[in-house]
Amino acid sequence: MIERIAIFGTGLLGTSAGLALRAAGFRGSIIGWNRSAEGAQIALDAGAIDSVEPDGLKAARDAQVVILATPVFSILDWMEKLSGVLGSEHLVTDVGSTKGAITTAAGRLFNQPGRAAFLPGHPMAGKERGGAALGDAQLFRGAVWLFTDDPTWVRTPHSAALIKGWREWVVAMGSKTLDLEPARHDELVAWVSHLPQFLATALSALLQQEVGDAPELKDVGGRGLREMTRLGASPFSMWRDIAYTNTEAIQTALLALEQRLAHLRENLRTPELRDEFEQANLFRKDL
Amino acid sequence: MIERIAIFGTGLLGTSAGLALRAAGFRGSIIGWNRSAEGAQIALDAGAIDSVEPDGLKAARDAQVVILATPVFSILDWMEKLSGVLGSEHLVTDVGSTKGAITTAAGRLFNQPGRAAFLPGHPMAGKERGGAALGDAQLFRGAVWLFTDDPTWVRTPHSAALIKGWREWVVAMGSKTLDLEPARHDELVAWVSHLPQFLATALSALLQQEVGDAPELKDVGGRGLREMTRLGASPFSMWRDIAYTNTEAIQTALLALEQRLAHLRENLRTPELRDEFEQANLFRKDL
Repeated sequence: MIERIAIFGTGLLGTSAGLALRAAGFRGSIIGWNRSAEGAQIALDAGAIDSVEPDGLKAARDAQVVILATPVFSILDWMEKLSGVLGSEHLVTDVGSTKGAITTAAGRLFNQPGRAAFLPGHPMAGKERGGAALGDAQLFRGAVWLFTDDPTWVRTPHSAALIKGWREWVVAMGSKTLDLEPARHDELVAWVSHLPQFLATALSALLQQEVGDAPELKDVGGRGLREMTRLGASPFSMWRDIAYTNTEAIQTALLALEQRLAHLRENLRTPELRDEFEQANLFRKDL
Repeated sequence: MIERIAIFGTGLLGTSAGLALRAAGFRGSIIGWNRSAEGAQIALDAGAIDSVEPDGLKAARDAQVVILATPVFSILDWMEKLSGVLGSEHLVTDVGSTKGAITTAAGRLFNQPGRAAFLPGHPMAGKERGGAALGDAQLFRGAVWLFTDDPTWVRTPHSAALIKGWREWVVAMGSKTLDLEPARHDELVAWVSHLPQFLATALSALLQQEVGDAPELKDVGGRGLREMTRLGASPFSMWRDIAYTNTEAIQTALLALEQRLAHLRENLRTPELRDEFEQANLFRKDL
């Protein structure tokens, strides 16, 4: 029943969603809105979208399902703008990396009588670099697509059907869906996604300062170094919004890691080091 | 001219060296000594060694080149034992991960008139798990094999020829050789190898404590999490010796990272965060 989709933001996730929908057999229209005309053109040339609409409000009104695939603050801006112009015939969803602020806004601006439905989503997929040019129809294959829907939100049969339809497309794109409370989502991703990211950033920045000009660096650094710093290439533009909208949980995780590193540093020559390795081994065994 | 090699320690590196030598066309004999008969048998079955010799001193005496491929403290033990029984017709080399203590011992116990030559070495290759079963003829391909030879050590034409011969086999196994001062080696690997390892260990151990029993963990954790914790599977038995023989340099690196993480934690909502991402991006651009 979903025949008209609008994708807002033709970066890595938006472009990949368009390509994945096509690969999964979606035959309806896909309109693209993007902040820069250049990124929209790349998505258009790749076949991720059928057309570019510079007027976002028009693009949204013409669609049944609007996918917000911009950084988090831009998603929140679009939610404000769209809530007044869309009605109960529309579903808006997103792919933002934090879900607390977005889910709160979804309750305030959407999911009410006469308003559009909003389904907060977050596919656990990405690359360390963004942009339409890296769009990949397989990006969501094998990934988990998280939702933080609120069971108390009132839905019409029509919006319930749109939500069911969108969830089916997510599965068709190769993802497994999982529903979480928004607070639990933000706490969990602080540990397993945001902490690894900020750690890779800090490690890469430190190494740039300490050994960035060592001519032997490229030779001596092995696979471990490359892996542990790959996320160091991630763009600030995306992570600024994540840092800002999940600050407390990220601070808790960073502080805990600082303390763990200090403990390890103080025990490089004591039997405590064995315990750390055993705990670490255990984590990897389960992963 | 090298026709008889003894490999001490048929773990990942020792077994891989035997397999790589064979793949590179070495047709002489390769004797193996290993602490456990089981690991030696796996290396033998894989064709990494031709025979197992439980008497290490005999194995060394029968060889022209002895490769010490055990953890660092065991390398130091074998250096003590072998220096008295080998003569100037032998070359001993190693693949230990720290080079300060080993290079000092090499000057004290070897590289003197009437004694065997010792060439301290360290291939920048490995896997997060050890053992003969993971032995891989391609392990050293594209890697850098570091040496911390001392130009003041006196060498006979015969030992110089053995060293030249062994360096040629290292190249034949697919590695690029690089010579470093031992102190510079240990400082550099503290940053680019030991710091990433202890970081992965601390992160994995912390996550085991914080979210190890979260049923959603396997679903939510993506490629970034898997990469940042892969080294968490590394064995304590190997890293204990590294921690003990490069303590000061590792402590310096860990403390610097703790401070960098605290700085980042305090600046999640300030423009400083942009600087950290830019430095990190720069490091990755160069890598």
